[in-house]
Amino acid sequence: MSADLLTRYGDGIEASLDRLFPMEACRQSAIFSACRYSLLDGGKRLRPALLMEFYRLCGGNPVDALPFACGLEMIHTYSLIHDDLPCMDDDDYRRGRLSNHKVYGEALATLAGDALLNRAFEVMLEQTAVPSERAVACARYIARCSGVYGMIGGQVQDLALEGKTASEEEQLEMIALKTGALLRAACVGGCLLAGADETAVARAEQYAQAVGLAFQIRDDLLDVIGDAKTLGKQTGSDAQKEKCTFVSLYGKEACEKKIDALTRAAVEAAGHFTDGQALIELACWLAGRDH
Amino acid sequence: MSADLLTRYGDGIEASLDRLFPMEACRQSAIFSACRYSLLDGGKRLRPALLMEFYRLCGGNPVDALPFACGLEMIHTYSLIHDDLPCMDDDDYRRGRLSNHKVYGEALATLAGDALLNRAFEVMLEQTAVPSERAVACARYIARCSGVYGMIGGQVQDLALEGKTASEEEQLEMIALKTGALLRAACVGGCLLAGADETAVARAEQYAQAVGLAFQIRDDLLDVIGDAKTLGKQTGSDAQKEKCTFVSLYGKEACEKKIDALTRAAVEAAGHFTDGQALIELACWLAGRDH
Repeated sequence: MSADLLTRYGDGIEASLDRLFPMEACRQSAIFSACRYSLLDGGKRLRPALLMEFYRLCGGNPVDALPFACGLEMIHTYSLIHDDLPCMDDDDYRRGRLSNHKVYGEALATLAGDALLNRAFEVMLEQTAVPSERAVACARYIARCSGVYGMIGGQVQDLALEGKTASEEEQLEMIALKTGALLRAACVGGCLLAGADETAVARAEQYAQAVGLAFQIRDDLLDVIGDAKTLGKQTGSDAQKEKCTFVSLYGKEACEKKIDALTRAAVEAAGHFTDGQALIELACWLAGRDH
Repeated sequence: MSADLLTRYGDGIEASLDRLFPMEACRQSAIFSACRYSLLDGGKRLRPALLMEFYRLCGGNPVDALPFACGLEMIHTYSLIHDDLPCMDDDDYRRGRLSNHKVYGEALATLAGDALLNRAFEVMLEQTAVPSERAVACARYIARCSGVYGMIGGQVQDLALEGKTASEEEQLEMIALKTGALLRAACVGGCLLAGADETAVARAEQYAQAVGLAFQIRDDLLDVIGDAKTLGKQTGSDAQKEKCTFVSLYGKEACEKKIDALTRAAVEAAGHFTDGQALIELACWLAGRDH
């Protein structure tokens, strides 16, 4: 079972990713294999689908947003590859398969991450369907969200908190950056690409913030109550690493309640868009997902 | 002793890099330190100076090109940090100082590289002095040169050649990508930013190709005949690692001759630009540099 939004855009996103990161028959073919191994691995495509939907809700034709949707997914993928490296989280598995460096080695995995980040901007800057000003506004926002002031800032904070008991404030700030920033990039980026007004941007931001936090709390919960097979990864790993999570901070029940409240906030923000039904359904689906 | 071109633009580039990658007093301050450690380490600033000079030669005001010049230097810097990692070249020193991961650890060094690459695009996309179309053309060209079809492709090929005897063709192709691509990005990028015509772009490409190859042959020579103190790094390391270099392929004398021929080609390409004197002087200076 998947949400309607993910089903609707899924095939188009897969086909575009495949086309935008082709398997090249050249001396450097190893890097293309390594990138494609992680990029085309059956991810949910949550971020690109959100970018396309917000672009549509603000008056655009979703197909025109594909280069930005795919660029954002490349950024998400690179961050997972680098996160799994031995010097970072040291994870051997990702989505039920060996992680990138376990298959291609650390050197190539490092370069594959670099290549995906770089290619993301290449692809966004190569697009021709949207006027340059809007393309630049969207790509700039995505860059801001993925960099030191966004996702990378969150990864740094995550490293710094390792082995420590984080305060609620620290944990919330870290998650808002590490997970939240790219979801914001998706929702707000779609609006900026369509040249939407400030009100739409503000609603998209509210939706992204609520969904992003609910998403992370659900992630932490699934590590405790989830099924390893459905999840495609070991459960209980947070507790084993003595990682500070929302479950360790609030307990299971309070986490469920927080997810409900955040989902209501997301539904409210989505309600301001004419035809925002799929956003509402997505928020509800994410709140109860089992993988 | 430095070339006039590097002296002319050097201070402006240093001040801009310092401003565009500030030291932030925040929870993520460690990443800002790590990035600045490698970014503001007294590099030659060859690439940014070339970008600014080609922009000037094609009719632009060099100051307007600073965000692109600095973005390119950030890309160059990230590639050095990742190249030095234990899983890559495993180098403890760079320009006479400890390499990034020896000071900040592997995790933060990996993220610092990511952050510099990301910030490069952020900075280029934030610029306001040049019309969007030209900015996009320049940033797109830089992205292409630094990615899988450029520098990263060269790094992958370099990894693949490790411990093998490369053919002359393989060595030339690897260097054209690994070192050459970013020098091309500098010279051609400057022209594209100024909206120059195809002839200027072709001349810039010729200049970059000649200078890039001469630069690398000189690098290989210096590892054999250079002075460790002046160079800021151990000499003889290529031979120790049994690395295939131009010296191992051609021998010292033939290398000197090749550098002379390439420098003449660079001088000829530069001669097509009115006021290309500083480019000529730079090519000659690079041919004889001792660090």
